[in-house]
Amino acid sequence: MKSFLLTPGPTPVPEEVLLAIAKPVIHHRTKEFGQLLEHVTEQLKNVFQTKNDILTFTSSGTGSMEACVVNTLSPGDKAVVLDTGNFGTRWTKLIKTYGLEPVIVKYPWGQAARPEDLKRTLEAEPNTKAVFCQLTETSTGVVNDVRALAKIAHEANAILVVDAISGLAGQRFYQDEWDIDIVCASSQKGLMLPPGLAFVSVNERGWQCVEQSTLPKFYWDFKTYRKSLREKKETPYTPAVTLLAGAQVALNMLITEGMEHVFSRVELLARATRAGIEAAGLELFAECPCDVVTAVKVPSNLDGADLLKRMQDKYGVKIAGGQAEYKGKIFRIAHMGYIDRFDIIVALSGLEMVLFEMGYNIKLGSGVAAAQEVFLGKNTGV
Amino acid sequence: MKSFLLTPGPTPVPEEVLLAIAKPVIHHRTKEFGQLLEHVTEQLKNVFQTKNDILTFTSSGTGSMEACVVNTLSPGDKAVVLDTGNFGTRWTKLIKTYGLEPVIVKYPWGQAARPEDLKRTLEAEPNTKAVFCQLTETSTGVVNDVRALAKIAHEANAILVVDAISGLAGQRFYQDEWDIDIVCASSQKGLMLPPGLAFVSVNERGWQCVEQSTLPKFYWDFKTYRKSLREKKETPYTPAVTLLAGAQVALNMLITEGMEHVFSRVELLARATRAGIEAAGLELFAECPCDVVTAVKVPSNLDGADLLKRMQDKYGVKIAGGQAEYKGKIFRIAHMGYIDRFDIIVALSGLEMVLFEMGYNIKLGSGVAAAQEVFLGKNTGV
Repeated sequence: MKSFLLTPGPTPVPEEVLLAIAKPVIHHRTKEFGQLLEHVTEQLKNVFQTKNDILTFTSSGTGSMEACVVNTLSPGDKAVVLDTGNFGTRWTKLIKTYGLEPVIVKYPWGQAARPEDLKRTLEAEPNTKAVFCQLTETSTGVVNDVRALAKIAHEANAILVVDAISGLAGQRFYQDEWDIDIVCASSQKGLMLPPGLAFVSVNERGWQCVEQSTLPKFYWDFKTYRKSLREKKETPYTPAVTLLAGAQVALNMLITEGMEHVFSRVELLARATRAGIEAAGLELFAECPCDVVTAVKVPSNLDGADLLKRMQDKYGVKIAGGQAEYKGKIFRIAHMGYIDRFDIIVALSGLEMVLFEMGYNIKLGSGVAAAQEVFLGKNTGV
Repeated sequence: MKSFLLTPGPTPVPEEVLLAIAKPVIHHRTKEFGQLLEHVTEQLKNVFQTKNDILTFTSSGTGSMEACVVNTLSPGDKAVVLDTGNFGTRWTKLIKTYGLEPVIVKYPWGQAARPEDLKRTLEAEPNTKAVFCQLTETSTGVVNDVRALAKIAHEANAILVVDAISGLAGQRFYQDEWDIDIVCASSQKGLMLPPGLAFVSVNERGWQCVEQSTLPKFYWDFKTYRKSLREKKETPYTPAVTLLAGAQVALNMLITEGMEHVFSRVELLARATRAGIEAAGLELFAECPCDVVTAVKVPSNLDGADLLKRMQDKYGVKIAGGQAEYKGKIFRIAHMGYIDRFDIIVALSGLEMVLFEMGYNIKLGSGVAAAQEVFLGKNTGV
């Protein structure tokens, strides 16, 4: 039985990237590594759509979120978290870890952050230092309008910190044009790499904030990474060298395709997935769905855990369940990274067969046909 | 765009096999190689369902067909070819190359060899030495009843030589139980390997014939290979060592699954493919379809070359066209080797989208739904 990985991280890694990662390890204090890091940094600027330096950390995405917190805040600082799901809540946990009490704007799962709420909050909380949010909230499949949120933050002299971990290189995003201050991301999503690397991009306004921050930091210190990069083309501590070798190949694939094309392609996969889900008689979960992952309500008479287990065990199709209070109540099909039209067809046809076996009233082929229509341009999707 | 290889050779190679092939080359005159060859030979006996030695040649499948000709015949010998397609015709070309004139029983493409025709031919041609045929004729997608053909050949004191190149490890086949005298096969079909290796299995009756044969042979000499294998666990000439290392892994996958399960699985894929093709409104080509490849008539108003080109260029799905006079008139979807249910779903959904784009009257999802029904056991298929 073949395996299909349609989870919102990790995502499948292309063979040419795996082969690059399998090459012999090079030392990280060499000219050869310097050239690699410099090249990957330039490539990442293209993907982030920015002129900023990109700082490369050997860590998971959560590590880069922690780095954003400790590099922007100081004891007593005011911070706002726009909490649209599990990863919004993670911002809160991180900030509280360092003894700060953020103002939390919490949304019911499935809803996006509303710019007017942020405006009202910042009016009530003047002198807020930073606003934390997600580009795409992986747990619910919603996309936030970070461009509008940044504008409102700036009007209140706050910076906007965006977790683009699941969104980067999938969801349409332009850091400089949208004037986003700090962005963090990780390797195992749209970047088509195994887990192990995280990336942070900080603009001028962001660096001003970083300069003032006094929370304790060593491994995560942005200034140390920028200095190493600029002066020595190095990372301050031993990096995951082979993953960087893979990154060079994966990023080259994205850049050769062109970021505009990447955004449109992922958007098409999302529309086909949503059309297929609705045609199969299921209900979408997110009010404002993102392009990188589609969250779907488990029909009330079905066991969500059983559905996932059947997809995995009988059909080899790995999709994600719900998190926290939505465990068993939603499932999620990711279309970020190295996923193409036929992965969506496979996921939908596998889902149809599982629903049929579970006694759900499903017309076989109906979801697949709706996705085919989107791919053929017969239907613009939902 | 991802690629899908559904041609009747080469076929996709599993990642674990590719990794085994990528290991360092070992020398072929070592104990280590001897153990490898011995192990692969034992594994192949299981796949051929025989107690015979299996002779391993570094060549394509055609090389092993030539080997069968030069090891069984002598100048002036009578031979019969049951010609059910392009590869049947290849037997004739090979035999004529060595100055013999075979008796050819030629069938229209799409038909299988009839045992009664062989019976009549052998009555008219007493003292025929050998009968040559295919287990599955790759060019037309038919399966021959080699068990019945062997029985008739033996009644006339002839041996049956079976080209099982596309059939082995897919089409149900039991060499010893069916009393087949000589069988040749190659690596890049049901055995899930790259091209480069060919295998021949000869029973006692076959060896008696080989002992009498005087056609010229050096590289192809069965006796040289058997002697090397038995006395030294070697091949007489340098073998494709890394492919043999891969063979050990691929054969282990087949044997762990169990040949009965392999046969049933491939049969299921064939039934799903045929059901999908017919539900999509297309017509099957073979009167007696085999399990390893499905030949389909190109609708008369469509351009077969354009259909293949669209499948490949726009959808990344590589299927095969027709050969010789059937070029452009049929196409062929293979389901041999490392192909699973979702490869069939991909091929059918891609085909539906291509037919739609070519203006053919197709209901999107219809072929996929029929295949899903077969996989779910709702429909036994055709």
